[in-house]
Amino acid sequence: MPGTVEDVDVPSASDVLRRCRELVRPALVDAVGRLHPWTGEMAAYALGWSDTAGTPEPGGSEGKGVRQALALLGAEAVGADAACAVPGAVAVELVHTFSLLHDDVMDADALRRRRPAVWKAYGTGPAVLAGDALLARAVTGLAGTPGDHAAAAVRRLCDALNDLVAGQAEDLRFEHRPWDGPGAVGPEEYRSMAEGKTGALLGCALALGAVLGGAPEPTVAALDRAGRHLGLAFQAVDDILGIWGDPATTGKPVHADLHRGKKTHPVLAALAGGSRAARELGTLLASSRPTDGAAAERVASLVEEAGGRAATRGEARRHLDAARYALRATPLTRTAARELDVLFAGLADRVM
Amino acid sequence: MPGTVEDVDVPSASDVLRRCRELVRPALVDAVGRLHPWTGEMAAYALGWSDTAGTPEPGGSEGKGVRQALALLGAEAVGADAACAVPGAVAVELVHTFSLLHDDVMDADALRRRRPAVWKAYGTGPAVLAGDALLARAVTGLAGTPGDHAAAAVRRLCDALNDLVAGQAEDLRFEHRPWDGPGAVGPEEYRSMAEGKTGALLGCALALGAVLGGAPEPTVAALDRAGRHLGLAFQAVDDILGIWGDPATTGKPVHADLHRGKKTHPVLAALAGGSRAARELGTLLASSRPTDGAAAERVASLVEEAGGRAATRGEARRHLDAARYALRATPLTRTAARELDVLFAGLADRVM
Repeated sequence: MPGTVEDVDVPSASDVLRRCRELVRPALVDAVGRLHPWTGEMAAYALGWSDTAGTPEPGGSEGKGVRQALALLGAEAVGADAACAVPGAVAVELVHTFSLLHDDVMDADALRRRRPAVWKAYGTGPAVLAGDALLARAVTGLAGTPGDHAAAAVRRLCDALNDLVAGQAEDLRFEHRPWDGPGAVGPEEYRSMAEGKTGALLGCALALGAVLGGAPEPTVAALDRAGRHLGLAFQAVDDILGIWGDPATTGKPVHADLHRGKKTHPVLAALAGGSRAARELGTLLASSRPTDGAAAERVASLVEEAGGRAATRGEARRHLDAARYALRATPLTRTAARELDVLFAGLADRVM
Repeated sequence: MPGTVEDVDVPSASDVLRRCRELVRPALVDAVGRLHPWTGEMAAYALGWSDTAGTPEPGGSEGKGVRQALALLGAEAVGADAACAVPGAVAVELVHTFSLLHDDVMDADALRRRRPAVWKAYGTGPAVLAGDALLARAVTGLAGTPGDHAAAAVRRLCDALNDLVAGQAEDLRFEHRPWDGPGAVGPEEYRSMAEGKTGALLGCALALGAVLGGAPEPTVAALDRAGRHLGLAFQAVDDILGIWGDPATTGKPVHADLHRGKKTHPVLAALAGGSRAARELGTLLASSRPTDGAAAERVASLVEEAGGRAATRGEARRHLDAARYALRATPLTRTAARELDVLFAGLADRVM
């Protein structure tokens, strides 16, 4: 991805992500190395470092490392050295990996980054255990951060963890709710779920960088807010990809979210529209038939026709704007602020 | 249980446990109340406060609350008020509940305290989620403890968590190890597993009370050591009950550990004996037939005949003595030290 036209010196989002991954890597390897060898093997697989035989797969299925990058940039944005935020970067990356492992168990998602999910590869019990080990290691590492900021950082991480788990709880409960009528999922409920499930940890990543960099509370709070909006944009993008994403890119089956009857933003927005397509969609979803194959194709068309895709694209755009606005309204160092802006735009641009 | 003959004023173990539960209860109720309502409902069920419909079952299936009691007595033993240790007591009780929820998933244990395990009652995914919520809440509450000791307390809890998860990993791995030959589980490996799985949190409970009570590090370390020995005694007792325990008391099927082929202390000790019974036991276990019904009966007899039960009783007694010795060698307040002694004896006496 090229730099913006205004400033050719700004690195691309993938350059920023790569630089941050390289800075965090030794500490992340050290953290995984402190796990029990068996949970460490599962963690290395989950992080995309190795296959199920423990054989290294350099870069094969590694994640982009958005959260670790946000932690480092959060520190740089408040004028601190990125190195001070490495314990925060490791913590959010481990928590993210923990949540992927456990969410895949809860959602019975068999694929993650085009490979079998950890529970598919190693079994449900081992995947639960590996998630627990990653979570414990995340908090331990952060609690052991040298300097004066460890306690505040741990409190931030804990708050995000509670939000994350509550968001996941909401998401699972939504599956038992009706598509319409008084029990239907409202926009505020959806937003609260998405902010917990996706926004809390992204906000925490940025905030942790600022906390470890010694920033004052209003700056920390502004970065947290920016990250939460980014998360909401991110979740909207994910919801779009969950219906219309190319399996070759998403690493998941086509229409995955429709097969599971998930209450995602595009479907909820489409149903709220009240058009003829919305009514047909409502009838189709209310029928007890499973939404697969041709039915999923039809549902996807109706969601689009009823404006669900456009509404969700708008939602992503609004939250991305809010995230960028929160950054601009905060006194941050110029270079880091630009890199954050590029990163934010790059992440949401996946479907724009 | 009556007081000891030397001192009729010492309360019984169950008196001590009851007093501590009453002191901790409001804070524990508050912590559970901060969870998402759904995970809170599962937590209340797991804690034995309510049934699956959320209807209160006062005292029905509640645990003894050993860990919360140890935290309070740890503070009293160093001359502090029990109230200062309540955040630690809540944390260890929530971590214990988290570990029961997840361990039951990993071990496919369908019964817990004579009721369906959480995963049986609510499903695997929800049980994993509820465990995560309890763990997050445990660390959050402790990190938010007022005063100067929160950071040290969180580091203690994290260390115990890592040990706990590593111990569970060992225990699961043992199931794939042979009963004899070079790959067999040695006594040191067994001890390390049991110390992690059971000792770490009991040690942490006592240590947290002392940390929150402002005790110096050597005292904290001595209490941690005492709790770890208590845990090893406890695990030995549990291993005996897992083979010979009365299902009406244990709430688990008879011979439960034999059916699962668990590498418990009585069986490992029996096999190490080299007697005729040990050899027959080895042959029986090495056969690929499932150990159930009559086979389990025969295995239990052979373990006993080969001295496994007596060896494990000896192991429990040695660790109980070591735990009590660690307490006596530490300067502690008289009343709390006596109550701890009564509690320690009462816990191990279940099979003595």
